[in-house]
Amino acid sequence: MDTKIKKIAVFTSGGDSPGMNAAIRSVVRTCAFMKIECVGIYRGYEGMIEGDFLPMNARSVNNIINKGGTILKSARCEEFKTREGRQKAYDQLKSEGVDAMVVIGGDGSFTGALLFNEEFGMPVIGIPGTIDNDIFGTRYTLGFDTAINTAMEVIDKIRDTASSHHRLFFVEVMGRDVGHIALNAGVGAGAEEILIPEENLGLERLLESLKRSKLTGKSSSIVVVAEGDKTTGKNVFQLKEYVEEHLPIYDVRVCVLGHMQRGGAPTCFDRVLASRMGVKAVEALLEGKSNLMVGILDDDIAFTPLSEAIKGKTKIDKELIRVSDIMST
Amino acid sequence: MDTKIKKIAVFTSGGDSPGMNAAIRSVVRTCAFMKIECVGIYRGYEGMIEGDFLPMNARSVNNIINKGGTILKSARCEEFKTREGRQKAYDQLKSEGVDAMVVIGGDGSFTGALLFNEEFGMPVIGIPGTIDNDIFGTRYTLGFDTAINTAMEVIDKIRDTASSHHRLFFVEVMGRDVGHIALNAGVGAGAEEILIPEENLGLERLLESLKRSKLTGKSSSIVVVAEGDKTTGKNVFQLKEYVEEHLPIYDVRVCVLGHMQRGGAPTCFDRVLASRMGVKAVEALLEGKSNLMVGILDDDIAFTPLSEAIKGKTKIDKELIRVSDIMST
Amino acid sequence: MDTKIKKIAVFTSGGDSPGMNAAIRSVVRTCAFMKIECVGIYRGYEGMIEGDFLPMNARSVNNIINKGGTILKSARCEEFKTREGRQKAYDQLKSEGVDAMVVIGGDGSFTGALLFNEEFGMPVIGIPGTIDNDIFGTRYTLGFDTAINTAMEVIDKIRDTASSHHRLFFVEVMGRDVGHIALNAGVGAGAEEILIPEENLGLERLLESLKRSKLTGKSSSIVVVAEGDKTTGKNVFQLKEYVEEHLPIYDVRVCVLGHMQRGGAPTCFDRVLASRMGVKAVEALLEGKSNLMVGILDDDIAFTPLSEAIKGKTKIDKELIRVSDIMST
Amino acid sequence: MDTKIKKIAVFTSGGDSPGMNAAIRSVVRTCAFMKIECVGIYRGYEGMIEGDFLPMNARSVNNIINKGGTILKSARCEEFKTREGRQKAYDQLKSEGVDAMVVIGGDGSFTGALLFNEEFGMPVIGIPGTIDNDIFGTRYTLGFDTAINTAMEVIDKIRDTASSHHRLFFVEVMGRDVGHIALNAGVGAGAEEILIPEENLGLERLLESLKRSKLTGKSSSIVVVAEGDKTTGKNVFQLKEYVEEHLPIYDVRVCVLGHMQRGGAPTCFDRVLASRMGVKAVEALLEGKSNLMVGILDDDIAFTPLSEAIKGKTKIDKELIRVSDIMST
Repeated sequence: MDTKIKKIAVFTSGGDSPGMNAAIRSVVRTCAFMKIECVGIYRGYEGMIEGDFLPMNARSVNNIINKGGTILKSARCEEFKTREGRQKAYDQLKSEGVDAMVVIGGDGSFTGALLFNEEFGMPVIGIPGTIDNDIFGTRYTLGFDTAINTAMEVIDKIRDTASSHHRLFFVEVMGRDVGHIALNAGVGAGAEEILIPEENLGLERLLESLKRSKLTGKSSSIVVVAEGDKTTGKNVFQLKEYVEEHLPIYDVRVCVLGHMQRGGAPTCFDRVLASRMGVKAVEALLEGKSNLMVGILDDDIAFTPLSEAIKGKTKIDKELIRVSDIMST
Repeated sequence: MDTKIKKIAVFTSGGDSPGMNAAIRSVVRTCAFMKIECVGIYRGYEGMIEGDFLPMNARSVNNIINKGGTILKSARCEEFKTREGRQKAYDQLKSEGVDAMVVIGGDGSFTGALLFNEEFGMPVIGIPGTIDNDIFGTRYTLGFDTAINTAMEVIDKIRDTASSHHRLFFVEVMGRDVGHIALNAGVGAGAEEILIPEENLGLERLLESLKRSKLTGKSSSIVVVAEGDKTTGKNVFQLKEYVEEHLPIYDVRVCVLGHMQRGGAPTCFDRVLASRMGVKAVEALLEGKSNLMVGILDDDIAFTPLSEAIKGKTKIDKELIRVSDIMST
Repeated sequence: MDTKIKKIAVFTSGGDSPGMNAAIRSVVRTCAFMKIECVGIYRGYEGMIEGDFLPMNARSVNNIINKGGTILKSARCEEFKTREGRQKAYDQLKSEGVDAMVVIGGDGSFTGALLFNEEFGMPVIGIPGTIDNDIFGTRYTLGFDTAINTAMEVIDKIRDTASSHHRLFFVEVMGRDVGHIALNAGVGAGAEEILIPEENLGLERLLESLKRSKLTGKSSSIVVVAEGDKTTGKNVFQLKEYVEEHLPIYDVRVCVLGHMQRGGAPTCFDRVLASRMGVKAVEALLEGKSNLMVGILDDDIAFTPLSEAIKGKTKIDKELIRVSDIMST
Repeated sequence: MDTKIKKIAVFTSGGDSPGMNAAIRSVVRTCAFMKIECVGIYRGYEGMIEGDFLPMNARSVNNIINKGGTILKSARCEEFKTREGRQKAYDQLKSEGVDAMVVIGGDGSFTGALLFNEEFGMPVIGIPGTIDNDIFGTRYTLGFDTAINTAMEVIDKIRDTASSHHRLFFVEVMGRDVGHIALNAGVGAGAEEILIPEENLGLERLLESLKRSKLTGKSSSIVVVAEGDKTTGKNVFQLKEYVEEHLPIYDVRVCVLGHMQRGGAPTCFDRVLASRMGVKAVEALLEGKSNLMVGILDDDIAFTPLSEAIKGKTKIDKELIRVSDIMST
């Protein structure tokens, strides 16, 4: 391969997600395989500005493929949003001899990388690491599959106690702007209703559905609510009150799953995806590409300009919403 | 065995806990083994009053040993607290031909059983089923071991994201009056501090400890808080605010685990314990005993009068509090 | 919908796989939603011949979405391979009033269904349920995602002990003719080498690779071997002997994972896939379609003629083999 | 505390078990808490002879409490069985300034430690780390609780497929001389029969039991066999053949769980136990004690002379064998 790239930097940025370590490992090992140097940057752009670097070889990433979180840590960085901050970062990279970089993160991280590239010409490839699955240009973001399994397994446990007591649970899962986690974990856990930002179910229909649910003899009900759902104008605690008032037959409880959804050992899907993405990211840099995101579309690795990735959103699967309706019969 | 008992009823009552199904299975199979009839009662005392019975044989309990919740359902019942309610319950049991009963539940359930026995002479043995581990006369209640593992595994996941971001998490676990879950899951998850009702740590010491934690270079902090802890005068959300105000260096998050701790497949310990307790409960009834709770003390099955079980509490393990302090060095 | 189909039968056949219950649930609930009758057949073609039927409504499939195995049981049936057997089966279906059927299984089950359709004109749609992922016309078979996670999690545990002792493990996973499980679970678990039927690695290269692995300082080695791999001419036990003879530096152990890979609660992916497939299977029948398999291609539900599904195989992912090579650097 | 001990060494030896890392962490943190130096020894006695030491402070053991295996590695060492080997080891310890040591391991490791103490007077405390639970002086060895859960969860999965196909499985679990894992995991998984070295069931009774099992309508059968069981004179593969010959009605399969039982994240019980044992081990050394093993008896930490620990065995729980018989009704 005829390339002038001799050293690649890799870092994680923004909210962490399961599979980030597997992606770091893949980038590092691909560099080793390609006889390219690799350096890890701690705490994303913050560490870049401070020059918090870690030279990494194939052995640096032993036994991390199955670890949640990110060994390189992550952070949000205000200073990088300034021209001065980015200049400092660039100087650090140059003095370390870095020729190109792989950023593992979401929208915000990609926006920074793009700007950085425009200003300093540093080649960059992005790997979409976020549990929310809300990045355009990839069917699956890294960590999404793990997060839906984590959420679903917890709802399975809640179901045990819900059906022992004929209770109704509102379970809030992550997803600030999108309902992917709610929809998939909800269908997987057999939820009676799923409230997501993309689809306005309405309070009326929710009540109707819960009434019917009782009538048809269901022993328990689980309503999964995406964190960012505004369609009912109520959060899970207000929903509880609303239902208790209008359907006093129900004994209602609330569960907010929260940050546990970001952690845990990644699933096989996420580890394989991370391994594939890391290889392609390094290869793309060595082929002289830049400003692209590695994604997976139609089961194949595909590249999308970072500029498009940060603008769009993956659409919610309308057909799966329909499946969900049918399943709650 | 020379006994006049020909039919035993079994039911679950109060909050459900993992292992209840394993205990039901054990009672049913022991009856089958002893050639005694067995009948399940749905929804605890409520179903008893309504005569909601299910004749059970060895095959009725196939493949339930690993299921969370309770196939016989559970409920809290106001009517049973009245003389009339209990009379109805007794009439139902008599018309079903029930000679004795095994109640799987906690304090409240045992109190009802004891009163019922006093009034109608129905022999009864209790099996302590609650995740809180707060019943006198047994080192472990049924479901406790599962609950501490569930809580700990979730905290492990939270740790992944906490240490990726150098964050502090307050994690609330169950335990309205007691800190057994918090203390064990906390030590198991390597929590930096554990707040329990039995021990007044104080806000001052919490701040000191968190300050020291930062100084010694810890990458994340988890403080586990028992639901019922009043020692700081603050709940987890107020603690977050308090710490953010006094230690702005910390980025604080809150997680309330909630009802997931009641569900899930029971651990091996809980299944074995349930199996042992069920056998002993039936044997005790056939030996003419009554008003006792089956417990485990010093690794052996032991009986405690129900009247004592409902009064006392298992003491918190002071030595383990000390271990926790040392571990957070 | 204008259709003459009033009653649909559903059954599982051949080797079981996680997600079969979720698929049964989906078929049953979709029938209920469409106001069509549904009947389950126990033990596949065997139960069909014996008329072992179970009328099912929406409530018959409560709380099974998360259960491994199949509540309708499965079996291989010699009698159905005879004309007489199939005649009996047809008579049973007719007397039960069945108009169409959904078969959940693999190659063999589909072959039988196709023949049955040719002879008696019974409309049939197939759902690919097998952990091996070896059916043409679908990127993922039902149960595959669960199986690779099960295998990978076990290899994670083996890794713990392998790296504590600097040992080499040969781990045999399922896959009689194909290496999909081995390749995915192997990459996911960070295996040093993966032996699959589709790719002739050769004993020489294996030894080379293991030698290099030691030299580069790896603390342990895992070689994942597909059950059906014949490329080395040796099974896992013979491989152990061979390596111990040629590389005495290695302390070698063997693990054959076996049937555990067929069981367990399905992953979210498999539950969602099963739900989607069940809906589409019933809809296809109601639209007058037959002799098709529901699959997933490029993230969308797609139909493939059963006649093609049983002939082809899903190709192994060559790119993933390359990723695996790079990852074991 | 008035003690001359300034530096304590800790190491793991023999077969690894889950919880060893938690014990290392506890020893290291207790030393830090007590202001004592601590040094880890890699690969047990082998590393001791080679002087493969690692100075450890409280931060050296961050985030290892939940990891399977042992970060200090383990090995069996022939050279330590010679006087010369032990002399080398002692010289290494002295030159490192080690005053006392904590050995985490089983019988063999304790025997070596005892001999070492006799010869060189090095104070030593043992922590029983082995999954087999076969060490006298402690109700639970470190790793046992995790191992029985691992085995049980795998058998749960096997049950899924066994009952889908009405099959009989022989499942071999670890336990070379003792049946603790088999008995507990077997009862927990609802095994129909459990074959252990301590109890001669006999082939006749096994056949009788399996016959009865079919008659009473069980849909599947699991027979758990301890690795070391010689009571039938047959291993699991021979048992399969024997049963197929004498009870052709059964479709029999075999599963050998193997080394996966040694790995995996430790359970809460094992982590808490490890934490408690580590504290007591260090405290005992500082109090001038030696040649003792820390164990848990009747729920309390208790010390047993190493010389007794290596001679005796924990007796099998006869009552649990009886429970097992009743449960398989």
